Amino acid sequence: MAMKKKPVTGMKDILPKEMAIRDYCIALIKDTYKTFGFCSVETPCVEHIENLNSKQGGENEKLIFKILKRGEKLKLDEAREELDLVDGGLRYDLTVPLSRYYSNNANDLPSPFKALQMGNVWRADRPQRGRYRQFMQCDIDILGEPTILAEIELILATTTLLGKLNFKNFTIRINDRRILKAMAAYSGFAEADYDTVFIILDKMDKIGLEGVKEELLKEGYAETAVEKYLKLFEQVTADITGVQYLKDTLGDYLPEDVAENLKTIIASVESTKSAEFKMAFDPTLVRGMSYYTGPIFEISMDEFGGSVGGGGRYDEMIGKFTGQPTPACGFSIGFERIIMLLLERNFRIPGTGNKVAYLIEKNMPADKLLQILDQAKKAREAGAIVNIAIMKKNKKFQKEQMEAEGYTQFEEFFIDRM
Amino acid sequence: MAMKKKPVTGMKDILPKEMAIRDYCIALIKDTYKTFGFCSVETPCVEHIENLNSKQGGENEKLIFKILKRGEKLKLDEAREELDLVDGGLRYDLTVPLSRYYSNNANDLPSPFKALQMGNVWRADRPQRGRYRQFMQCDIDILGEPTILAEIELILATTTLLGKLNFKNFTIRINDRRILKAMAAYSGFAEADYDTVFIILDKMDKIGLEGVKEELLKEGYAETAVEKYLKLFEQVTADITGVQYLKDTLGDYLPEDVAENLKTIIASVESTKSAEFKMAFDPTLVRGMSYYTGPIFEISMDEFGGSVGGGGRYDEMIGKFTGQPTPACGFSIGFERIIMLLLERNFRIPGTGNKVAYLIEKNMPADKLLQILDQAKKAREAGAIVNIAIMKKNKKFQKEQMEAEGYTQFEEFFIDRM
Repeated sequence: MAMKKKPVTGMKDILPKEMAIRDYCIALIKDTYKTFGFCSVETPCVEHIENLNSKQGGENEKLIFKILKRGEKLKLDEAREELDLVDGGLRYDLTVPLSRYYSNNANDLPSPFKALQMGNVWRADRPQRGRYRQFMQCDIDILGEPTILAEIELILATTTLLGKLNFKNFTIRINDRRILKAMAAYSGFAEADYDTVFIILDKMDKIGLEGVKEELLKEGYAETAVEKYLKLFEQVTADITGVQYLKDTLGDYLPEDVAENLKTIIASVESTKSAEFKMAFDPTLVRGMSYYTGPIFEISMDEFGGSVGGGGRYDEMIGKFTGQPTPACGFSIGFERIIMLLLERNFRIPGTGNKVAYLIEKNMPADKLLQILDQAKKAREAGAIVNIAIMKKNKKFQKEQMEAEGYTQFEEFFIDRM
Repeated sequence: MAMKKKPVTGMKDILPKEMAIRDYCIALIKDTYKTFGFCSVETPCVEHIENLNSKQGGENEKLIFKILKRGEKLKLDEAREELDLVDGGLRYDLTVPLSRYYSNNANDLPSPFKALQMGNVWRADRPQRGRYRQFMQCDIDILGEPTILAEIELILATTTLLGKLNFKNFTIRINDRRILKAMAAYSGFAEADYDTVFIILDKMDKIGLEGVKEELLKEGYAETAVEKYLKLFEQVTADITGVQYLKDTLGDYLPEDVAENLKTIIASVESTKSAEFKMAFDPTLVRGMSYYTGPIFEISMDEFGGSVGGGGRYDEMIGKFTGQPTPACGFSIGFERIIMLLLERNFRIPGTGNKVAYLIEKNMPADKLLQILDQAKKAREAGAIVNIAIMKKNKKFQKEQMEAEGYTQFEEFFIDRM
């Protein structure tokens, strides 16, 4: 029977060239994060449907690939709704499974717990160029650490990694959910309106101050509040001075320590970073997920018009799942976007061994084959990549093909010349 | 809402200790196989249900995790059978997806194509100790290479890897499907009976020659055939001499070259191997899957009562899927079994950097924190693993816990002593 040749809708086969870069990145990510004391953990790709539907996943809960129950025969005629047939789904992120993992295994885990997760997630998004329904996520999380040591280490680990991948001149934009709230409160917005205000604020980089003002007014908010709010953004600068300005201006609206902590995070990262990038205080940074409770951050790269990663503190979420209050902070890099950028710039994997091809004449006698295998063994032990292939009739074409795969050295073995 | 804490039935959370070994093995496997010229490829975990049900998967087709259709709302009341609701499933092996991958991408792939696949597969087996419904498979396959160069390279690559993991004194048992058939034909069994005969033969290591004889007779086969058959097994030895004996005895029943090729495989591997193991010719080796067409092999380890990997030549299978005849040969190691064995023997990961813990007093002022972060940066750049943690009240307990995680060096930082 002939088979369907294409992958399922919205998912992709990964060719050797991309896989080589992915493998290199995965190894580098694990090695780098481990020097910061993170440990790898893994959860099953299949998660309880109840956990996936627990309302922490936001819009992603609409995009779940659901898995039919196993076991007793499906009662199709008795089934009234999907949930009668389904008990699991493919995970759409690594955060919900991490919460379950932590509550299941906390007794066997260090405290604080520095977790590194790399794994596929699935979302049934409308298929579109460059976005796939299966993609890899790469998260680091520190559970059980209430101080800004968590934020600092997460940002240092992530930026150290990006530096090792030759990314430069990127920006870590940082803000704090409590600054967002204090600015809205100070300006006179009601707490019930914060979410709408922040959704509009989030468009600042696209529509500018004037655009934000227009939309806020259109939404019906008092002109005095809108004016006061926008004035803050006009005055503030994208650095520690900007944080200080807000601290002085917002006064009691801002909980104690928030500004000082943010300043310490920025200063610490700036002075101990090992990659070339800058920290920017960005009071317009919102981050979509409502579960964030403290500092939030995002990686911006000019060459990629958008975020290539982000994270923040989410002190309430784990407790909601587990019943045990647990401070938590995480940073996720956009693995697929990083791979895409590396492919676009023809990233050369450093330290790849010499790639040597041995072309051997057909029907090589056993004793001569031994000599060749022995030579290959020694070269491989010395670190070379050795590909032994039977010589084809069109040797020129064969070599060209192998050159395209990165083979730079060729040795030919003929029966009567051995 | 509280969540379900346990993983879904039959799947497991992987704790840091096991993950460290898995990560190490995955990197070592990829590095080792790459020196043999294999390239990583990846297919989606979700596969078309038609491809999974194409009869190449044998018993595994009964164990598929099926995925509900997406898109237009499910028509539950119109659905008469499962396939009305389902269009995908989780892959149960890496061979069916590799066939699809090869037929989809052959134009962009080298020829011969040496593929390395590491990925999870899912089977809804009855849950039992040590067997999980999600597990990692690790396959190398050479597509498009008709000569025994494929078998030799696959066995050398696999055994080199096992050697690097400190496995010794294992055995690669090898046979050829055509020897199996020739032995049955020579003895007088009808071709239609081969499968039954081989299923009984496969029990040799459990029930012995007498047991096999008994079962064959019970099945109703002629006593002369059974006697002749068993005599072959009594005479044959587990080495090249044994192969030669069968070649001499079976005569025209055995296609030309089969014995010579098998002898060359055994001799080549024996003399160029880089690990401590032995090759054993085993005419009772059957390997379950009916798709094998030539040499077949299996890894036996005394410390693990059973196979920890196997493979063979399957020249007909890819063509059945793709319509394009393609010789193929593969070797799969039992990744989960190998991890289990390494855990049991308390495998120590070589070359792990120094694990240092910095314990810092609470509320460390920003300027002093900087000094600590800077020291950590330098140590990490020098290859150490540095975990910075806030000093707890019960420092002794904290250190004990970190020692259990492998931290051997502690540095303490106090505010008034900096």
